[in-house]
Amino acid sequence: MKIDESVDNINRKALEKEISLLMQKLYPICRSITGNGFRETVRILQEYISLSVHEIPTGTKVFDWEVPKEWNIRDAYIKNSKGVKIVDFKENNLHVMSYSVPVRAKMSLEELQKNLFTLPDYPDWIPYKTSYYNETWGFCISYNQFKSLTDDIYDVCIDSTIENGCLTYGEYYCKGETSDEILISCHACHPSLCNDNVSGLSLVALLGKILQSVSLRYSYRIIIIPGTIGSITWLAKNQLSLARIKHGLVVNNVGDNGELTYKRSRIGDAEIDKVTEHVLRNSGLSFNIVDFSPYGYDERQYCSPGINLPVGSLQRTPHGQYPEYHTSADNLDFVLPENVFDSLLQYLNVCKILENNKRYINEKPYCEPQLGSRGLYDTSAAPSSVVVDKMALLWVLNLSDGTHSLLDISERSGIKFDLIKTASDALMQKELLSEYID
Amino acid sequence: MKIDESVDNINRKALEKEISLLMQKLYPICRSITGNGFRETVRILQEYISLSVHEIPTGTKVFDWEVPKEWNIRDAYIKNSKGVKIVDFKENNLHVMSYSVPVRAKMSLEELQKNLFTLPDYPDWIPYKTSYYNETWGFCISYNQFKSLTDDIYDVCIDSTIENGCLTYGEYYCKGETSDEILISCHACHPSLCNDNVSGLSLVALLGKILQSVSLRYSYRIIIIPGTIGSITWLAKNQLSLARIKHGLVVNNVGDNGELTYKRSRIGDAEIDKVTEHVLRNSGLSFNIVDFSPYGYDERQYCSPGINLPVGSLQRTPHGQYPEYHTSADNLDFVLPENVFDSLLQYLNVCKILENNKRYINEKPYCEPQLGSRGLYDTSAAPSSVVVDKMALLWVLNLSDGTHSLLDISERSGIKFDLIKTASDALMQKELLSEYID
Amino acid sequence: MKIDESVDNINRKALEKEISLLMQKLYPICRSITGNGFRETVRILQEYISLSVHEIPTGTKVFDWEVPKEWNIRDAYIKNSKGVKIVDFKENNLHVMSYSVPVRAKMSLEELQKNLFTLPDYPDWIPYKTSYYNETWGFCISYNQFKSLTDDIYDVCIDSTIENGCLTYGEYYCKGETSDEILISCHACHPSLCNDNVSGLSLVALLGKILQSVSLRYSYRIIIIPGTIGSITWLAKNQLSLARIKHGLVVNNVGDNGELTYKRSRIGDAEIDKVTEHVLRNSGLSFNIVDFSPYGYDERQYCSPGINLPVGSLQRTPHGQYPEYHTSADNLDFVLPENVFDSLLQYLNVCKILENNKRYINEKPYCEPQLGSRGLYDTSAAPSSVVVDKMALLWVLNLSDGTHSLLDISERSGIKFDLIKTASDALMQKELLSEYID
Repeated sequence: MKIDESVDNINRKALEKEISLLMQKLYPICRSITGNGFRETVRILQEYISLSVHEIPTGTKVFDWEVPKEWNIRDAYIKNSKGVKIVDFKENNLHVMSYSVPVRAKMSLEELQKNLFTLPDYPDWIPYKTSYYNETWGFCISYNQFKSLTDDIYDVCIDSTIENGCLTYGEYYCKGETSDEILISCHACHPSLCNDNVSGLSLVALLGKILQSVSLRYSYRIIIIPGTIGSITWLAKNQLSLARIKHGLVVNNVGDNGELTYKRSRIGDAEIDKVTEHVLRNSGLSFNIVDFSPYGYDERQYCSPGINLPVGSLQRTPHGQYPEYHTSADNLDFVLPENVFDSLLQYLNVCKILENNKRYINEKPYCEPQLGSRGLYDTSAAPSSVVVDKMALLWVLNLSDGTHSLLDISERSGIKFDLIKTASDALMQKELLSEYID
Repeated sequence: MKIDESVDNINRKALEKEISLLMQKLYPICRSITGNGFRETVRILQEYISLSVHEIPTGTKVFDWEVPKEWNIRDAYIKNSKGVKIVDFKENNLHVMSYSVPVRAKMSLEELQKNLFTLPDYPDWIPYKTSYYNETWGFCISYNQFKSLTDDIYDVCIDSTIENGCLTYGEYYCKGETSDEILISCHACHPSLCNDNVSGLSLVALLGKILQSVSLRYSYRIIIIPGTIGSITWLAKNQLSLARIKHGLVVNNVGDNGELTYKRSRIGDAEIDKVTEHVLRNSGLSFNIVDFSPYGYDERQYCSPGINLPVGSLQRTPHGQYPEYHTSADNLDFVLPENVFDSLLQYLNVCKILENNKRYINEKPYCEPQLGSRGLYDTSAAPSSVVVDKMALLWVLNLSDGTHSLLDISERSGIKFDLIKTASDALMQKELLSEYID
Repeated sequence: MKIDESVDNINRKALEKEISLLMQKLYPICRSITGNGFRETVRILQEYISLSVHEIPTGTKVFDWEVPKEWNIRDAYIKNSKGVKIVDFKENNLHVMSYSVPVRAKMSLEELQKNLFTLPDYPDWIPYKTSYYNETWGFCISYNQFKSLTDDIYDVCIDSTIENGCLTYGEYYCKGETSDEILISCHACHPSLCNDNVSGLSLVALLGKILQSVSLRYSYRIIIIPGTIGSITWLAKNQLSLARIKHGLVVNNVGDNGELTYKRSRIGDAEIDKVTEHVLRNSGLSFNIVDFSPYGYDERQYCSPGINLPVGSLQRTPHGQYPEYHTSADNLDFVLPENVFDSLLQYLNVCKILENNKRYINEKPYCEPQLGSRGLYDTSAAPSSVVVDKMALLWVLNLSDGTHSLLDISERSGIKFDLIKTASDALMQKELLSEYID
């Protein structure tokens, strides 16, 4: 089955249900850039796509960086002097700042407060904090709770380890007809934050599941990595074979209620940029296109000047542009499976066009060929015979000179890509076209 | 005499009268893509321009096509059982579908109706129908007449022949200083339809008559051809010498009341595109510019990917965009000689600019040359001396570096082409410019 | 000291006072394209910048021109029959048409009137007239005075000489690190006209004074020349070393109340064009950008097709676009020192950006380098750490691939040039950047 058929017959309800179930499974796990929460996440995703697991040892040099120590956490809490747990990691893993060093101490409120983080503007929400490269510890609590704390001696426990270990990532390779690749990259280093990044993980799991069920022209590589250090590690390990990546997308924030947003690659007018913008323009949804900037997610690394891959980012509301971002309010209520589905559908449409976006050569380029005698054209010359697919035939014939892709023809003619593709198939069958090979 | 002078001294009234008379002569003839009506049309045009007549035998291979059998018709009618002619080809040649096979039969109304064509939306008008490549026959009548037909036995006669013969076309070659050519192409395959194509035929006849009375830099080739098969045939016969065609225009629909419309060549920014758009912008008339599309008239063939000539189309309302198109309402009342004249004037202006649109080299390119000592410039430095033609001199000197044509200079400076041309002539005379040869 | 620091610490009040004093010194002198008034002007400017003086003999061939005879004038007047001086050169040197031949004659009013010039639209103002290349003479007076003249015998005296001599120009060369040059050209051929050209002379004097007090990357060449013949002469004398001129500006009309105006070079998108437009957009002042045209001041010569230097013109209201232009109303009241200062500041800002507008190479181009470990970046990943200079660091790293200048990075990122420059300095210090050499 071709991807076109798969997309045409997609079952929205069934997929939304699968998205919902997967998000519920992934949401509670305490993930960080290393550790067992990341491993557990990859294991769950392996139920959908055959990810291989890579473990890169602490201290491995990756470009200007090195793989950090591995962080794991079993438990953490703050008890008051009556022995009541007033903050409990097991209730919400955001309570502990990621990469907190182990702590077991009694301390005054004043002392404790130095390591407490809150969001005064959103007094009910718990913030999300990390401290990957500073040896420190912290608890994140709501501002309302912070204000209610009384003078007391608190029993503080963080039962964590920061030790030599590994950075884990998952990689799924789906072989197509050619070794040219499409890269789909999703970070998985955030704990109980649903839009950023559980929504993305559920999208790529289902995207991968669909891709492995169809016959493909491109090979696809889906990587599940910790943000920043993960893409740096992956790029360092794969530096010699990056040239096979022809197009790529970074997945994130795909489940909120905001408009779809495409952030262009550093190149700005690469095929992935043109295709994704075309898909959004034809999606019937409202959307934004933004230029590349060197901030955001792993496109920062893919689009660094020495790498400069044609990788954009297709998301909904970008990082930091919604108040729930990196707080406990980015939860399962904030993300709707139907939004994730709509995002997934656009990813599939991008893949569909990339799969079909070939260039052709008109084999009868001197004047128009006879379409009527080949059954391709109504022979009566009345103007009523000018229906859209006839125009698609004429446009494909006219522009198939090896310099125009089917997307170029669709854009120039204003005719939908599907009709242009149907026309090119019909012309190929009649041997009026041949595929153009660079 | 130069074309500039001829255009400046053009006699609008006299030309409108000539256009009117010629259209009255051409309108009644029953033309098709082959046959005696086409020959008669060429013969009438020979009274204006020395067209050579080419006859290409049926069956000749022309690219993907072959020249069809020749169709001729002497008479056609439908009589009712009382012997009354209710439809008569001699009253209006649109009554017979072009390329109808011969018929002589009596039939019921029911049987007859299968071969009747009408326009229910315009119940008084007779449609125009053709069936070049299907062996069939038909009559076209008004919808009002169609509704009034009663049960009867009808006597149907089409006295036509479809036999081996020739495809005819006329060709006028007007030799200029150089062998570089401007191609003017006009189809002549429509019977009594006035805007499409009698207006175009009268325009090219008078354009050719004017061109043959002036001295020219370019050689001009005017071809009078049947649509589609005619341009394909002509291109096939002239394939080896197409490189001499530097610019071209397809003439059609030049007499209705609509705005002038320029349809760009497939190249899109060829010199013919720039010149024609410049002429329209400076015409004082309202106009439209539309991009190339592979539908319409013979630009489809001239702009096929293997031919790709710089040929646009200058017309008024494009095919199919007015209700009278391809109906009996496209008659001598629908087309005004003053509209045809205005169209002709724009064609002449295009030719005028193409004739003059050379590139020059400033022979004193280091700083400004002395204009005062050469009598080209007022020597008092007062600002009042800045009149437009002084600016034209300065612009021509400044941009005559071999990369800017006079049109480029006119566009960049905002100074009218005529003033730029006058300035370049003055500078040539003073040997401050020389013509740039590629 | 770097130019940045000098501009940051500029003393507006002190400079405005200096501008005012210098304009008062320069305004009364009777300058023309040659002669002692020009020499005296250069001598005064030598008090500010170490101009060398060049004397080019009458008759020297310079491209299509030759250096004219030298004109000097001691006195001129018109007396009425009572011996009363009714027009006196010593009261206003505009009274005598520049390059007037010597005259000593008595004549009727009627005869005199043939050589009188007035401005009827501005009846109180004296016009400015020249006659460099016609041997004639004339007086310029107000229209009110002209109307009041009665029938009488007038005693007319112009005590001038037109003899072989020299064309004078001043040239200041300020050596920088490289031999690449920035050319600043100012004409000095106008007598008591304050905006055109005393304002420009005072600007370049103070610009030069500041430039010679700072360390520079570029070498600067300031030339004080007569308009047209002066720049032609200078270009002819320096033809072989023009390639060292990388950027240039023509200074004029910098003191009126109008908006700043940048007239682009003929090239149109040269670095000087981009830099000056950037400076104006970021000046907080209103301004105009106009395309090159081959009229105006000496940019006509610098931008002639055989020279074609990247030289624009930064001015306030262009020549001829204010009524006081080339009249006695262009006086010390018309020009405000604060306007000249504001213009000077933009010239300094242009120089500042040109000095700093280098291209760099990211030395760690594969993914982002670690900024935190180098003290360049806050290590906590909270969004609040995204402050503008962090973005400047990321943009400079991302675009430093040898093809983007710092100005390009500023424009693409929307971050102010100063912040981009600060970021590039910090990155250079940490050896994350190296300078890109073409």
